Amino acid sequence: MPMPSRCDLLIRGAGVVSVHTGEIVPADVVVTGDLIRAVTAPGVRIEADRVLDAEGLLLAPGYIDAHMHIESSLLTPAEFARITVRRGTTTVLADPHEIVNVAGREAMAWMIEQGRTTAQTMLWAVPSCVPALEGFETAGARLTADDIAEMLDWDGVTTLGEVMDYRAVVAGSPRMRSIIDAARRKGVRLDGHCPNLTGDDLGEYLWAGIDSDHTKNTPDVAVEKARLGMLLMLQEKCLTPELVRRLRELPVLPDFCLVTDDLAADAILERGHLDHIARVALDAGLDPLTVLRALTLHPARRLGLDDRGVVAPGKRADLVLLRALEDPAPVTVVCGGRVVEDGADDAPPAPAANPFAASVRLAPLDEGDCRWRTDLPDGEHTFRALRVNPVDTYTEPAEVVLPVRNGIVDWEGRTALLAVYERHHRSGRRAMAPVVGFDLAPGAVATTYAHDSHNLTVVATGAAALRAAANRVIGSGGGICVAVTGQDPVHLPLPVGGVLSQAPAPRVAEGAAAVREALHGWGWRHRNAFMSISTMTLPVSPQVKLTDQGLVRVVDRAWEPAVV
Amino acid sequence: MPMPSRCDLLIRGAGVVSVHTGEIVPADVVVTGDLIRAVTAPGVRIEADRVLDAEGLLLAPGYIDAHMHIESSLLTPAEFARITVRRGTTTVLADPHEIVNVAGREAMAWMIEQGRTTAQTMLWAVPSCVPALEGFETAGARLTADDIAEMLDWDGVTTLGEVMDYRAVVAGSPRMRSIIDAARRKGVRLDGHCPNLTGDDLGEYLWAGIDSDHTKNTPDVAVEKARLGMLLMLQEKCLTPELVRRLRELPVLPDFCLVTDDLAADAILERGHLDHIARVALDAGLDPLTVLRALTLHPARRLGLDDRGVVAPGKRADLVLLRALEDPAPVTVVCGGRVVEDGADDAPPAPAANPFAASVRLAPLDEGDCRWRTDLPDGEHTFRALRVNPVDTYTEPAEVVLPVRNGIVDWEGRTALLAVYERHHRSGRRAMAPVVGFDLAPGAVATTYAHDSHNLTVVATGAAALRAAANRVIGSGGGICVAVTGQDPVHLPLPVGGVLSQAPAPRVAEGAAAVREALHGWGWRHRNAFMSISTMTLPVSPQVKLTDQGLVRVVDRAWEPAVV
Repeated sequence: MPMPSRCDLLIRGAGVVSVHTGEIVPADVVVTGDLIRAVTAPGVRIEADRVLDAEGLLLAPGYIDAHMHIESSLLTPAEFARITVRRGTTTVLADPHEIVNVAGREAMAWMIEQGRTTAQTMLWAVPSCVPALEGFETAGARLTADDIAEMLDWDGVTTLGEVMDYRAVVAGSPRMRSIIDAARRKGVRLDGHCPNLTGDDLGEYLWAGIDSDHTKNTPDVAVEKARLGMLLMLQEKCLTPELVRRLRELPVLPDFCLVTDDLAADAILERGHLDHIARVALDAGLDPLTVLRALTLHPARRLGLDDRGVVAPGKRADLVLLRALEDPAPVTVVCGGRVVEDGADDAPPAPAANPFAASVRLAPLDEGDCRWRTDLPDGEHTFRALRVNPVDTYTEPAEVVLPVRNGIVDWEGRTALLAVYERHHRSGRRAMAPVVGFDLAPGAVATTYAHDSHNLTVVATGAAALRAAANRVIGSGGGICVAVTGQDPVHLPLPVGGVLSQAPAPRVAEGAAAVREALHGWGWRHRNAFMSISTMTLPVSPQVKLTDQGLVRVVDRAWEPAVV
Repeated sequence: MPMPSRCDLLIRGAGVVSVHTGEIVPADVVVTGDLIRAVTAPGVRIEADRVLDAEGLLLAPGYIDAHMHIESSLLTPAEFARITVRRGTTTVLADPHEIVNVAGREAMAWMIEQGRTTAQTMLWAVPSCVPALEGFETAGARLTADDIAEMLDWDGVTTLGEVMDYRAVVAGSPRMRSIIDAARRKGVRLDGHCPNLTGDDLGEYLWAGIDSDHTKNTPDVAVEKARLGMLLMLQEKCLTPELVRRLRELPVLPDFCLVTDDLAADAILERGHLDHIARVALDAGLDPLTVLRALTLHPARRLGLDDRGVVAPGKRADLVLLRALEDPAPVTVVCGGRVVEDGADDAPPAPAANPFAASVRLAPLDEGDCRWRTDLPDGEHTFRALRVNPVDTYTEPAEVVLPVRNGIVDWEGRTALLAVYERHHRSGRRAMAPVVGFDLAPGAVATTYAHDSHNLTVVATGAAALRAAANRVIGSGGGICVAVTGQDPVHLPLPVGGVLSQAPAPRVAEGAAAVREALHGWGWRHRNAFMSISTMTLPVSPQVKLTDQGLVRVVDRAWEPAVV
């Protein structure tokens, strides 16, 4: 059919980058509605409602994030979209497993609904492991295979979210098998999470039909996975020069995606979103065309999106204008055919109603709640502890000798304490263990954002500080509070399920940065202090973790007795 | 779940080729049912019903043909599968547009049904252009958009077959638009056919959602298509050193598939199937890993088959054992978990019933039928003719001066004549035109296999020879017959719709080879004489063609008057 005589948008004079051939060819791009109508020789004569002069710039497909969690930004879906679209991220596949662990199906439905208000395409993965480790922790919700099967039919849902309990899959757990079978019957993709799984265990995981991984692996294990057709999804921590060197030595460079997984609001505003990950990939030694393909073509394929990931007639007009292939931060972004204006939509979105305002079901802690009770006889005992480190979320087992008197462990002044309070079902359940690795000033941090059950989690050097920080968080319906003794507490409220804010991104970013700074000032000198705190409760992340039910030895999926 | 203690097949000691990384890694491959259960370190201890010792061999995924027509082999689907599986072709996407032009939906249903009896996976494309050029030819059937929409829902159907009438698409023909819209609503792939379509016309074709092409293009046009994300499907005639050089010069080598399109039984038995195309690709300068990926990974992706195209746990046990990557002819083939035995199944399959035995609806020709009648006045006239060439199927316009007397063109002894007799609806319609380019001995060839309407098509140097050849074909319910004056006629019956034989492949191959030889002996010295004859009636193939309704100027989609 003949070209129309007018169009909505005309992008003139850019060098169009082909993700298929790597060529850069000058062309005018004609956009009607949300589609690319034509990619034609420069100088096309057509009436256009709007013309973008792109002389001297490159035009590439919008970026696609095939694995991420919106909750990590601490923002609502609409606010998340607002700040990431302008960084070039025009499509995401979001796995809302944080808020779904708190509030189940209703939370998933709410996230999808919120996502519909944005120009960014939001596709959804149904969380596969709610709770993350069945029988070892108390989440707010529990998804059965039947729940998951039904949710996989919801509009916008395309994927079974990362199957984190990979040990259960390898061991043939009936629960994981029924969930996986449900997903396979629906014909959806199954996303993986299996750090350094290798050999026959990896074979069992592949046999189950799970064919991607976004965790950090040794270069050898990453290559083993790629060799067997598992799609590598590389996030910031994966993108090491060692891995890149190993990949480039292969006879064929396997396809992979770049993903963000978990990025907080302040990180996004300061450093960027997928464009930031792209820069990390370039710094690690990947060439710009490979990086661009990993942001566009490969994730589009993974998500089964034939309608995007390339600049061609008939494809969705999700586009980025770049200064150079080596500079992935877009000058201008077009999303669904509309130019994303830098500032016009900076007004905070009207806060939506919050159906998850009452998710922290705990009365304020009293003095008794801050005592560490035990059945042990009086005397010195060697308690098992978590040893944290400044770099990653790995927690080594450690030992701390503490005196017990009258059924109470006397920890104050002797160790920092990690305490987890169940906050969904009013069970009163709690668990405590020493945590070592940082030299902390007197004070505490309390948070309801604690993977994956998001129980109230506190690290404290003393009972009074514990209580102060915890009660501040309880009082605000969830959030994170750092209370260093003698200083004003720093508090970021997260009243949506105890995991999200409804505030505009800059304010959340400011709050998150203040929390980070306070944690550092307190002595929690971790590269990603927030992540380090919030993963001490994640019983599928190595090596020893504390849930509201007790200490877990992750690799064996077994309880770890409190004392040696 | 734990590995089983026994398996159906164990392939020991091969070097497993990864189509993702290009590595060759020694491994044992455990097969249960039709699936790869494990790819594990050599020396696995497991009971196996059968062990293949593959020491010194390479193991790769079975080959996948993403574009082909079974009818070109002249064999039934079962017999086609029998001879191609052993060449490594374990999956095909077949577009049965030859037999569907003869017998419509019933023919498609019959082909699918026949295909179910084989181990080869047969997926199906619904022919999009039946007839190929609406209004210019008389096919046995006509598929409407509604027919096609319904057939796209049939079991095993995944694709809209090659949209050959690309000029109609570019011009916005309502019929093609409604067919394309029907396919897009179903969410199936749309395969293309658009030789050397370029620029804005190519843009319109892409805009319609058609995103593959298997025709021969200049290297520049091939690259233009690849650049815009159109998947190149390269058949034998495309695989020139020029194209390979051009592709390899690109910053990124685009993905492409190797396909067979049209291979006759004798070609398959003598030279091979996809393994033959692979050898041609290697000879043209492609490297062996690229060739293997174009036979496995890329077609699997194109066909949306996540379950194959890589040797990994959970994938379908479609496998080839090779001596070397440079030698694509398999030593042994495993299809759906079973070793394909070389010889055990050589017994011809029991001939299925033939529901399309009465497809040639023509009485034997009499003398009058062989006269070329005209309305022209007596005298010399300059008639438009087809000029054939020895290399390809391109037919240039030519001119031949012939005398007319009493409404009859006196052609005998002056030119070879091309005559097309409508054979589906007893219309009595026929058309004639001179054909030049070869120096022919007295004689004729007649065939009911003539693209795409498969009307009875004859080339003859005289009326008697015309009649003899034609009546031999009519008498056998279809086929191809070469009758050189003074020699025994060579005749290959094709009684299934006038396009397929039910004989075993070796006998059909022998017959086809004899026809080719007879054509060469007669003087029709074409590289692919059979194809050259059968495409003179194809009004979507450049440049001038003859249908039962008259001469067609293909590029303009217009009638060409018989005289200048």
